[in-house]
Amino acid sequence: MAQQTVETIARALDARAEGDLTLPIDGASEPQAAGPRQLALAMAPKYVDGIAQGHAVAALLHEGADWKALGLKAAIFVPRPRLAMAGLSKAFDPGPDIAPGIHPTAVIDPSAEIGENAAIGPFVVVGRGAKIGPNARIASHVVIAEGARIGADALILYGVKIGARVVIGDRFIAQAGAAIGGDGFSFVTPEKSGIEEIRETLGQRQEIREQHWTRIHSLGTVEIGDDVEVGANSTIDRGTVRATTVGSGTKIDNLVMIGHNVQVGQDCLMCSQVGIAGSTRIGNRVTLAGQVGVSDNIFVGDDVIAGGATKIFTNAPKGSVLLGYPALKMETHVTAWKNIRRLTRLFAQVAELRETVAKLIEKEGAK
Amino acid sequence: MAQQTVETIARALDARAEGDLTLPIDGASEPQAAGPRQLALAMAPKYVDGIAQGHAVAALLHEGADWKALGLKAAIFVPRPRLAMAGLSKAFDPGPDIAPGIHPTAVIDPSAEIGENAAIGPFVVVGRGAKIGPNARIASHVVIAEGARIGADALILYGVKIGARVVIGDRFIAQAGAAIGGDGFSFVTPEKSGIEEIRETLGQRQEIREQHWTRIHSLGTVEIGDDVEVGANSTIDRGTVRATTVGSGTKIDNLVMIGHNVQVGQDCLMCSQVGIAGSTRIGNRVTLAGQVGVSDNIFVGDDVIAGGATKIFTNAPKGSVLLGYPALKMETHVTAWKNIRRLTRLFAQVAELRETVAKLIEKEGAK
Amino acid sequence: MAQQTVETIARALDARAEGDLTLPIDGASEPQAAGPRQLALAMAPKYVDGIAQGHAVAALLHEGADWKALGLKAAIFVPRPRLAMAGLSKAFDPGPDIAPGIHPTAVIDPSAEIGENAAIGPFVVVGRGAKIGPNARIASHVVIAEGARIGADALILYGVKIGARVVIGDRFIAQAGAAIGGDGFSFVTPEKSGIEEIRETLGQRQEIREQHWTRIHSLGTVEIGDDVEVGANSTIDRGTVRATTVGSGTKIDNLVMIGHNVQVGQDCLMCSQVGIAGSTRIGNRVTLAGQVGVSDNIFVGDDVIAGGATKIFTNAPKGSVLLGYPALKMETHVTAWKNIRRLTRLFAQVAELRETVAKLIEKEGAK
Repeated sequence: MAQQTVETIARALDARAEGDLTLPIDGASEPQAAGPRQLALAMAPKYVDGIAQGHAVAALLHEGADWKALGLKAAIFVPRPRLAMAGLSKAFDPGPDIAPGIHPTAVIDPSAEIGENAAIGPFVVVGRGAKIGPNARIASHVVIAEGARIGADALILYGVKIGARVVIGDRFIAQAGAAIGGDGFSFVTPEKSGIEEIRETLGQRQEIREQHWTRIHSLGTVEIGDDVEVGANSTIDRGTVRATTVGSGTKIDNLVMIGHNVQVGQDCLMCSQVGIAGSTRIGNRVTLAGQVGVSDNIFVGDDVIAGGATKIFTNAPKGSVLLGYPALKMETHVTAWKNIRRLTRLFAQVAELRETVAKLIEKEGAK
Repeated sequence: MAQQTVETIARALDARAEGDLTLPIDGASEPQAAGPRQLALAMAPKYVDGIAQGHAVAALLHEGADWKALGLKAAIFVPRPRLAMAGLSKAFDPGPDIAPGIHPTAVIDPSAEIGENAAIGPFVVVGRGAKIGPNARIASHVVIAEGARIGADALILYGVKIGARVVIGDRFIAQAGAAIGGDGFSFVTPEKSGIEEIRETLGQRQEIREQHWTRIHSLGTVEIGDDVEVGANSTIDRGTVRATTVGSGTKIDNLVMIGHNVQVGQDCLMCSQVGIAGSTRIGNRVTLAGQVGVSDNIFVGDDVIAGGATKIFTNAPKGSVLLGYPALKMETHVTAWKNIRRLTRLFAQVAELRETVAKLIEKEGAK
Repeated sequence: MAQQTVETIARALDARAEGDLTLPIDGASEPQAAGPRQLALAMAPKYVDGIAQGHAVAALLHEGADWKALGLKAAIFVPRPRLAMAGLSKAFDPGPDIAPGIHPTAVIDPSAEIGENAAIGPFVVVGRGAKIGPNARIASHVVIAEGARIGADALILYGVKIGARVVIGDRFIAQAGAAIGGDGFSFVTPEKSGIEEIRETLGQRQEIREQHWTRIHSLGTVEIGDDVEVGANSTIDRGTVRATTVGSGTKIDNLVMIGHNVQVGQDCLMCSQVGIAGSTRIGNRVTLAGQVGVSDNIFVGDDVIAGGATKIFTNAPKGSVLLGYPALKMETHVTAWKNIRRLTRLFAQVAELRETVAKLIEKEGAK
């Protein structure tokens, strides 16, 4: 990184700055912990008090803050602070340390094509016929198997495994240990299995049989669009015949599971530990909070938002906001649990009513 | 793979074929995407229309379909299509590309025994005294630690870690990143811990104490039967004294956790993100859907089926079909939520009743 | 390990022994499976019967057991058996087989500092300026990235990835595949996103907009105290500006996710598949059972215990004992489900009451 100043940062953020714009800035920090060359991040009024406790002479402030009164020498003002953080953090992120070129220990198949300006770390394996676009940064222990294709500007962290024939777009980011292109979990029994029976009868079973599982191999692959990020130790399985797909702009957190044949749309957020079972379709701009589960072979419409650990068993109409196990509209879920918590009182009221009415009838009968 | 034809495929599937049996077939596809040398998979009537949109001249069809009318030159008829997919996908799966022999970068302890016909990829580590059966295909970055034993025909994908002294049967498949034989999560406090107290009192606590955790090391190992598959980034911990066990024929999906001392029976299916806590026993032919959780030290009987994200806290009798948090019989769970959703109306009815009865009593009193 | 005897083990456990204290002991086992040089673990009365079925001549017994009548030659008596297991298992655990010194295939940056007495396995990568304390045991395929600092006596299993500038205390243990220091899952839209809107309105949405996600880079790191253990394939993300922190003595199981900016206190237990969303604070001595989820930006007080798969959406006061989705006090949750299961009967009672009251009113009207 070149030396940053208040001015270069303000320009990167497309933000207004006041004071000494030539002050050198090496990083950013919470206000109370900021050193004299760090920008104090005080983007909401409640954080402003911390500036006095730290050593910053420049700060990122919300509009209207009085930087001079805070003892600062310069300030940058941002209208939407979280958005400013995006630009700011990008400016200061050194990224992982991967030396330019191909590390001598890497095992690259002679038929693989690697774009210009690559940085490939130790113990990387690139298979037969794989293609990697320009400017790739690939950390140690990564596997890019035979026939896989990855676009430009990829950043692939330690130990990521990308299976055979997987296709990925530009600006791909994968955190450590992600496994893309494993075989789908697809097994079949010679006779109809207990699970198939249950699904038809909602829980009734005729008889219980011995059943051995025969493997359905995964002939499909995984296709991932542009600007996708996959988190640490997440897994995306290949499709059975067609590809499992993830649309452009979708971001996937750690320990997420995307099953075989799943189609995820564009600009989705899948938070940590989300699981999408086989052959389910997820629309565009869908947000699934942590630990959400989605059953197989269903459809989640565009712009659905599901709160933490929601379990979605049936199709979700576009735009719905869901919560709970089973998934209900968020307000229905909240009402349901309000009602449940009032049940002890309801039981008492009904018991009392029954007694009262019984007495009334007795009296009536006695007339 | 040798060149396949309609005839060789039909024979592999033990299925009846009609038309030109000599047609060469290189792969399989959805009907609408099929090329002229790909078999169109149209095993249900609803998929048949796609054939006209694609370029296939041969198709896998359900019994009774009129292949000539569909413009095809040949057809294979299968009674149970999903089962046919197993044979078909196996025929066309090239498997991962691992060169025969042992890659020069692999670090194999001289005391390790590796069966004939092995293919071992780059950066594999095999420890002291480990034994691997014939025909093993071991992809890059795999660890098979000291004293581990693996049967014949293993397929072990990128970066799998198999710990010391783990014992695994024949035809084992492990997807990328699986970790088998880690230490169990077992800690103890000098005094009775808060958790032990809660378990005895169902939630009451006498007093809260400082508590430090002392580690119980795992002396046991993991024993896995024949024909077991373990999914990407799943983990199976070793036992404390005896082994954690997984029975033959059991299939485990991605990101599954099998805790220390757990005993899993034969021919089970554990879908993605299932967690089985320590010392629990799972019977044979048990199916746990995605995100199911099973508490420690309980027993889940043979042939139990648990729907998505079911949380099993107590013993489950054999053959039961469970759903929900907490796990209930599937139909009980469904009824429970039907009832819950009618509660707002019930509250109104009871309120109205109370009013009506109060008036009746008032009237009665007024007489 | 030096040869153990009944005496050396008793001394290690600070326990009382009787009989022939010189008997050689090579390991420990369940009573029924014990060989003649293995200590039979019969720490509760119900396990004592197994001794006759095995071949042990020495046993770990609960106070008051009559070892002579059991046909043993020696016995060790322990007041708190699970605690004894800690000492015993430590004595017999050989640990992973990592040769002393640095394996020739390891890639260690010349500027890295590695303490004395290290054992570093094949294909390990240690980055620029990393510091590792004395007595480190580091198994194959581990990455310790640039600037990371790890204290004394670390045990780091196969394929663990420790990101740049992560700071870890003494006696750290990491199981295979753990990924520490990945980038946080933090994205922002230029306009207010659907999620931000939902949070403010509890589920109401004005309109649905296109939204692309801009990445907030993680400038913070991860700071981990002393005596921490992290399980297989777990992930701990780095903070946005300040560090994500894990306090001393905290133990983390497999497949756990600790999000960016999270602060976990001391001596906590986080069981398998727990997920803690971004910026949440967890107090000291908190125990979260398997599959517990905790929302972002909340606070879980000291000594909280949450049962299996509890979903915590709001601040949890210190000392509370929680269960359920949504999290309730454990006894409230138990009562709630008792009530729910009685609802079908309640609906019938209310229906009957309504009928009875209707008749009463009719009668009344007829007078």
